[in-house]
Amino acid sequence: MKYGGILPKVDIAYETWGEMNEDRSNVVLIHAGLSASSHARSHPDNPKPGWWEKFVGPGCAVDTDKFFVICTNTLGGCYGSSGPSTMNPLTGKQYGTTFPVVSVNDMVRAQFLLLNHLGIQKVHASVGSSLGGMCSLTAAVLYPERVDRIVSISACAWSHPSSIAMRYLQRKCIMTDANWNKGHYYDGPFPKLGMKLAREIGTMTYRSGPEWDTRFGRKRIDPNQKEQSLCPTFLIESYLEHQGEIFSTKFDPNSLLYISKAMDLFDISEDFGSLHEGLSRIQCPVMVIGVQTDILFPIWQQRELAQVLQEAGNNAVTFYELNSIYGHDTFLLDLNGVGAGVKGFLETHLKETGWLTKTSKDVKVNFSHTKNCVYY
Amino acid sequence: MKYGGILPKVDIAYETWGEMNEDRSNVVLIHAGLSASSHARSHPDNPKPGWWEKFVGPGCAVDTDKFFVICTNTLGGCYGSSGPSTMNPLTGKQYGTTFPVVSVNDMVRAQFLLLNHLGIQKVHASVGSSLGGMCSLTAAVLYPERVDRIVSISACAWSHPSSIAMRYLQRKCIMTDANWNKGHYYDGPFPKLGMKLAREIGTMTYRSGPEWDTRFGRKRIDPNQKEQSLCPTFLIESYLEHQGEIFSTKFDPNSLLYISKAMDLFDISEDFGSLHEGLSRIQCPVMVIGVQTDILFPIWQQRELAQVLQEAGNNAVTFYELNSIYGHDTFLLDLNGVGAGVKGFLETHLKETGWLTKTSKDVKVNFSHTKNCVYY
Repeated sequence: MKYGGILPKVDIAYETWGEMNEDRSNVVLIHAGLSASSHARSHPDNPKPGWWEKFVGPGCAVDTDKFFVICTNTLGGCYGSSGPSTMNPLTGKQYGTTFPVVSVNDMVRAQFLLLNHLGIQKVHASVGSSLGGMCSLTAAVLYPERVDRIVSISACAWSHPSSIAMRYLQRKCIMTDANWNKGHYYDGPFPKLGMKLAREIGTMTYRSGPEWDTRFGRKRIDPNQKEQSLCPTFLIESYLEHQGEIFSTKFDPNSLLYISKAMDLFDISEDFGSLHEGLSRIQCPVMVIGVQTDILFPIWQQRELAQVLQEAGNNAVTFYELNSIYGHDTFLLDLNGVGAGVKGFLETHLKETGWLTKTSKDVKVNFSHTKNCVYY
Repeated sequence: MKYGGILPKVDIAYETWGEMNEDRSNVVLIHAGLSASSHARSHPDNPKPGWWEKFVGPGCAVDTDKFFVICTNTLGGCYGSSGPSTMNPLTGKQYGTTFPVVSVNDMVRAQFLLLNHLGIQKVHASVGSSLGGMCSLTAAVLYPERVDRIVSISACAWSHPSSIAMRYLQRKCIMTDANWNKGHYYDGPFPKLGMKLAREIGTMTYRSGPEWDTRFGRKRIDPNQKEQSLCPTFLIESYLEHQGEIFSTKFDPNSLLYISKAMDLFDISEDFGSLHEGLSRIQCPVMVIGVQTDILFPIWQQRELAQVLQEAGNNAVTFYELNSIYGHDTFLLDLNGVGAGVKGFLETHLKETGWLTKTSKDVKVNFSHTKNCVYY
């Protein structure tokens, strides 16, 4: 592992959709966000809607009639891949906080071990949002010869201190819950209060002011209540509480700690001296998408990413700046803005359009804002 | 009290600077923010620097050579004014959560009882930031004939759901600390963990991404540490922890709950049917200042405030949109942007400049952006 430690055995849970073609050239690797499983889309074995249900499927943005799509559960997660809640084969007990610190590099290396296992040398595209967008970039940085194009949505090339602050606070909620017990709670009471509060803070960072204004405004839980108390008054408060409640028991708190920490530690420049050096390893076409109302991965980070990629000599950078009202979670909701761009990018034929054949530094490529979306 | 309940006795702590003139026409009332006391500026009886030390004093933005300046501790607070930690004379015990829910209206009414007590019929200006900016607006709405001009900095005319969310999370941290004991902790263990976490979240909402990038970037607590753990790695994390630690024992948790709730409940439209109707009561000159990096009181709220005031017929609205990197806390730090504007506004002679004599709706007054500040 990047920061020390060894896993005696690694499981990586994955799901696939579509058919691999004969020359294995139609593989799309989807990287999940912090709390998502490998279940990006429903299928006969598991008809439950996936976390990217409307974006993956026949005719969708990631078209399963054209591509063989793979999505993995993140290393460190709790939906089948090795993580703190899995058994350490050397001790016969769950790892808890004896699980080694995980990095985004480790997550991506584990995915490429899976690709080796499946006999896949090269992916047509590496696609991800949020943590998945960090993984997507990292795939092309670590394995430039194995990735043909990448999509990085609402992500960044390095974690900003304000994003670190927002995740640190969530970790702190869990770690100050006495039931967390330094990570060894699997045989005792569950740190539900801390986990719930952490998710409420998380929810605040995933959505945005403009959406909440439209959706909740100052609507009250009980519009007829005239007297007030210190308890929740407004719908926005019960919404946050509900989001915390439903998430608190369906995700492992230690997994949240490990993956959240991996996101903080993410910095493409770390292993290459500078951002420019690190990103210059990516010479395939890149689509960068950012959202103006995202407070967790602020838009200036995607602008910077697109710009440094271009400055590092990449002639096939497509940058979309969306004015969606949904903040960071836009990638889960915005079929128009996110879906259309991704579809077009994945299905453009490289040779016919001349992508990557331009060599002049003067060519200004695809650096466009989409200011005319239809959200307001 | 607006939302029910009666206080058998009200104390309002206040401090003053400068001399009242003979016709009592030079009074400036300063409204404090959530956690501030009446100690806006040092004086011989208390030489400790005040919370607005550089903005109040001889020759300063609020010039104590010209004005008689009064600052009060907020009703519901814990620095001398009646609040949940003061003794209920009827029971001989501290109120705790038997203290009635406080509104911004109640806070301002209490201040005007103090003005009555001091024999002051009219104030030259009502000045405040954040909660203080809500109070400042409210003073002119409740007592239009007693306020000659108002300054409202980094505030709003109604609390937005995203601001409510940020404060709700802080209250929840305190209220889920077992030591909080439903507000009756004065004779038992102090809910320090909850209070500390609440302030860490608060700090996140008070400052901004651009400042933290400049100040902390990705600097590490121990730059030589190569291995990582789940504990804090980055300086931004220890900064938040430190801010939580120092605040946690110098403010009463119940006061934070009450004042924070009063801010959530704030909505000028509530008592007047609409924002336009409520704000149309303010016919004195108004200075509205907002900051583009403020995530707690987003800039669109100050834009809206200035605009609705104008639409409601106010011909003397000055609006400054600052591009400071300090977020919500700009009002504590930015002498150039905030200080200069406030000074000019307080010292402009009404009659000579013709303020308020313009009656045409077509006159576009002072609706300007200050885009050329010197922060970056």
